[in-house]
This record gives sequence, C-alpha cells and structure tokens, in this order.
Amino acid sequence: MRIKLADKTIEMHSVWFEDNIVKLIDQRYIPERLEVFEAKNIDDVCFAIKEMVVRGAPAIGVTACYGIVQSAIYALESIEKIREYAAKLKGTRPTAYDLFYAVDFIVNSIQQTVASTPERVVTSEKILNIADEYCKRIVEECYYIGVNGAELIKENSRILTHCNAGALATVDYGTALAPMRIAKKQNKKFVVYADETRPRLQGAKLTSWELYNEDIEHYVIPDNAAGYYMAKGEIDMVIVGGDRVCANGDFANKIGTYEKAVLAKEHNIPFYVAVPRSSIDFHLENGSQIKIESRSADEVRKVGDTQIIPEYISVLNPAFDVTPAKFVTGYITKWGIFKPEEIYKIQNEKI
Amino acid sequence: MRIKLADKTIEMHSVWFEDNIVKLIDQRYIPERLEVFEAKNIDDVCFAIKEMVVRGAPAIGVTACYGIVQSAIYALESIEKIREYAAKLKGTRPTAYDLFYAVDFIVNSIQQTVASTPERVVTSEKILNIADEYCKRIVEECYYIGVNGAELIKENSRILTHCNAGALATVDYGTALAPMRIAKKQNKKFVVYADETRPRLQGAKLTSWELYNEDIEHYVIPDNAAGYYMAKGEIDMVIVGGDRVCANGDFANKIGTYEKAVLAKEHNIPFYVAVPRSSIDFHLENGSQIKIESRSADEVRKVGDTQIIPEYISVLNPAFDVTPAKFVTGYITKWGIFKPEEIYKIQNEKI
Repeated sequence: MRIKLADKTIEMHSVWFEDNIVKLIDQRYIPERLEVFEAKNIDDVCFAIKEMVVRGAPAIGVTACYGIVQSAIYALESIEKIREYAAKLKGTRPTAYDLFYAVDFIVNSIQQTVASTPERVVTSEKILNIADEYCKRIVEECYYIGVNGAELIKENSRILTHCNAGALATVDYGTALAPMRIAKKQNKKFVVYADETRPRLQGAKLTSWELYNEDIEHYVIPDNAAGYYMAKGEIDMVIVGGDRVCANGDFANKIGTYEKAVLAKEHNIPFYVAVPRSSIDFHLENGSQIKIESRSADEVRKVGDTQIIPEYISVLNPAFDVTPAKFVTGYITKWGIFKPEEIYKIQNEKI
Repeated sequence: MRIKLADKTIEMHSVWFEDNIVKLIDQRYIPERLEVFEAKNIDDVCFAIKEMVVRGAPAIGVTACYGIVQSAIYALESIEKIREYAAKLKGTRPTAYDLFYAVDFIVNSIQQTVASTPERVVTSEKILNIADEYCKRIVEECYYIGVNGAELIKENSRILTHCNAGALATVDYGTALAPMRIAKKQNKKFVVYADETRPRLQGAKLTSWELYNEDIEHYVIPDNAAGYYMAKGEIDMVIVGGDRVCANGDFANKIGTYEKAVLAKEHNIPFYVAVPRSSIDFHLENGSQIKIESRSADEVRKVGDTQIIPEYISVLNPAFDVTPAKFVTGYITKWGIFKPEEIYKIQNEKI
C-alpha cells in the first residue's frame, strides 16, 4: 500500500517477516503515527492479534502463519509444541475464519513437508517459503478481488464501506478497498463514504487514512448517517469485507455491517462482500453457527484518553454481527463475483 | 427529574427561569458534572441553543420562550424588538419544530395580551405567567405521554431508544423516557438498550445518566449494535422522540433514528415516537419538506480532548434524518396513541 510520509511516499505491507520477527504496522496508532510492532515470540503474536495491533481477517491469518513459522524456525520447536502454539493462536479471537484457516494451513503444510522428506526433517528455508507463499497468495487474491470488483464501480459511483477492509486488514490491496484501489488506477472518478465504525473507529481512522494515501475522494460519516445518505439517493453501492462466510452465504463482519445490509436492501442498493478464500468457512452451514466475539466495554467507554461513559453504567460491546445471505448481492472473489447461493462453486479453490 | 448527588438525591428541571435569568442544566457536561448555565440575555439564550447547552426539541422550545420573556420583561423591549429577537432565536437551529412553535406561541400571546388590555401595556407578571404556563403544559404533556406510553411496556420488555428524549430534553419526564419513568413507578420490570448516538453521544452520556438516576436497568450499546440485538430477538420495542412530525406522519429525529426504524420493521418490532403537540408541524405535508441541520465536522472529528480524525480528512455531519410514516407503529401523545395516518386528529389540540 502507498503511504504518504512528510517527505516522501513509500510502499509498504501491513504484515511481514524479517530477521525472525513478525513485523506489523501497529494499527492502534494509525493515523496518528506509523509505528512498527515487533512480535518476537508466540506470546507477542497472540498479544498483537488479541489487542488488535493487527486486525482484519486476512492480515490476522498471515500474522498467525508467521507466528507459527517463527516458533518452528527460530525456537526449533517440536511439532507437538507447534500444535500447542497453534491452539494458543486460535484462542486469541473467535470470529474471523482466516485465523483458523491460516493456522491449519501452515501446521498441515509443515507436517506434510516433514512427512515427505526422507530425513523426516524440514529446513527453516522450506518452512519460511510456505508462509511467504501463503502471504503472497493472500495479496494476489486481494489484487484480483480488486480487478473483479473494479468492474462494478461505474464512473461517478458513490460507494459506502464499513469498518476497514483495506490493505491494513489484508497485508496489501484490501478486500472491500481493493476494487477502489484498482478503479482509481483505471482513472475512474468515484467517491467513498466511510462509516466511522464505532466503537474502535476503524473507518474513521484506518479506512480514511488508506483512502487519503491513495488520493481517493472520500468522506467519513457517523455510522448513524449511512441510512440518511441512502435515503437521499447518494449511495450507489455498498462494499464491505467479511470475517467469516458460511456455506449458505450468510456472513459475519464488523458490528454494524448487518444494519447497512438491511438498509441497502430497503433502498435497492447493491450490497457486495469482498473476501479471499481464507474467509470462507464451508464447515458452517449458516450464520447462526458463527461464534460472535464480545470485547471489553472499555472500547465503548473510552475514546483515546476521553472517558465518555462512567464505570457505573453497563455497556455491551459485541464485535461482529451476522448478515443473512438474502441481503448479499454478490461475493467479490478472485474467481469472480458470486451470488451467495453460488459461493459453493469456489469450495475446492485454495488460496 | 431525579438526580443522585454524592450525598443526596434532588429533584430538578432541565430549564427554568429565576431572577430574570434563563437557567439550564448544561448538557455539555453531563454526566461528568452538574453545572447550571445562566443565560442573561438573548445572545446567551441563542448561544445555549446553538451550542447545545440545552438540546431536545421541547426543552429548546421552553428555553426560547423564556428567552423572549426575559427580553420582554427585563429589557422592557418594544414588540418590534421582541420580533427581532424571535427571528434571531428561530435562526439558531432549523430542524426541531418546538423552537418555532414556542417562539410563535409566546410572541403571539404577548401581542394578544397587549391588545386585550385597555392600556395597551402588559405587566411583567402576565408575561412571565404565559411562559410559565407553556413550560408547565410541556411538563404535563410529557407526564401524560408517560402514562399512555407505559401501557405499552409489558413485564420484562426490552426497549431500544436512540439519542436522549428524556427529562433533559423536555424540562421533565421526557418523551421517549417518560413511559419508562412511569412504568418504573408502576414497578414494572424492564430493560432499556440505549444507543450511544454518535456523534454527540446523547445516548451514552445523557440517557444513561437519566436512567441511572431513576434506577432503571439499562445498557449502552454502540449504534452499530442495535440491529444485532434485534436479530437476536432481544428487543421488543423501540421508543424514540421526534424533533418535527409532519401532517402525513413522517418525522425528523436525531441522525440514526431512520436506521433503527428500518431495522425495527425488518424484525417486526413495534416502533413508537413520543412527542408533545409542540413537535408536530401540520404546516408540512411530508418529511421531504423538513430542513435538516448540518453541524460542524468537529463534532465527529473530536471526542472530548481526543481527535479521532485528522483535519485533512473530509467529514459529513448531518444532525437529523427523516423517518417515513410507514415505519412508525404509533405516536405516543398526551391524547393517546395514534397511528401516523391518524395524527391529524390532534391538530386542534393546543399544548
């Protein structure tokens, strides 16, 4: 992704592996400052995922993948220890499927590689290659999501998005933001309305920062205002990401996504969900089976240093909601755009 | 309204007139501290309305009423000057109808009183009586809204509300919160979900403070979470206030109200709007004629001392939205509960 610094513009990923360290753009500090978080062991990696140093389903997946690689290479852990770390990683956050997909992918790949070598050992180089390949494919998938999704963006389109499903959330390009990045490269003129996305304000802070860096015209709006702009006829389409898509086309995403989906349907506005294969959980029949994470009330109570709600008031903070398939116009994927009932067609695709 | 202080519990109105000063609970500082704002002249009163020291349609109406009275009594202004002040007051905020209703009411009443006295003069006492009567009737109306609305609250009801339509917004009792106050007095058990109501957080700050003071069980939730709880079957009814109701039953209220109305309909959840007569504008045929206020982007950019969105990002901040009549189950009024198409029945009622 492109990042404007004071004196220059740089290209950067949100997650990478270097000197046996999992390096992450610390998303807790965007847009205030660009800081790199260094996860040096499995506890650091778990902390980074849990505390949302890194967030966004595909980026969490890549981070977890490198977390396992780090343990396997650096700590030279046994496969039993690696399985223990895998369980620990899977315990950090329950909703996004990528975490589970990525961890299973890397653990199975390491096992298979071990099994297929005559010496029953595997070199660090091979393990790292597996993780790098996973990361590369996620980025590639996002690029093609962008290419396919950009076809939906017409000249002068006004697009609503919720939360951040950008490069920060996916290593590069993004899911929901990938079509915007590609459309921008195609010199299309369009404007993005970014829901601020309470309580953690990923739209206000992360999405606006990415769009600013890409010179994409946009407005941040309070979540409450999306319906207002839809009713005024100022939204032509909605594109969001998805944390876990089920076999029937239901999906979980950041809290508030469901509200936007219902509103989009009420206004006959197309509602698209952009996802890599690693976010689709074909083990789940439907959305009622998705575990929804509840996060700390403090995320709602406090905004930065400002306490908006006193401690004696009860606060609820569900982090995700489930949008039934009937509200989804299409899933934007590397393999094309699919209606929710067609999503099974990519079941055998691998990331 | 009841307010718990450190050492005692007091009863208080949000607006009153004392020693020729319009006194207001400064709603910018609730729940952090209870501070009284003293408006000593028409500019102070205009400031208080514009900057939301006082907010909530009926409370704004009463404040404006006392603002005129203050000028008429204290400054002994001519009727021409009073009309000039009336215009100034009407220019402070465009959406809530009470401001216009109250200003017209008081100016006309003063004129009529002048016209009906043989000396063509009117005593301070008479003018003050008119304003006090207006204020008293607003409070009474809210009480009866409470009595009528409380019948809708069943044992174990789970009620969603948006923004603050409580005693702060209406001098006492509230509109949406009045039925809850009365139901509580009737010893009904129920729970309230209060949307935090970005950007100004009236739900998180004001509604939760009022409910806390009344010992009514409640949770603050991010605006984004209302749909989630509806989908889970945890909301039985929605009650909100209304800033301006039109003849056809469309109404304007705090931004985000429309989103909740659409969601309530999607889930077959009854959606009630509690209003005094002074919020109903029979001059307007439908909601498309309501002027929607846009407020400063800083309300979104900053939360207390925390800047969440940099200055170089564009922000939109519409303060209200319009909910079409078809989403309204009923209007809760002093005169009973009316379907939107029946609201004309109270056209000839006076506050």
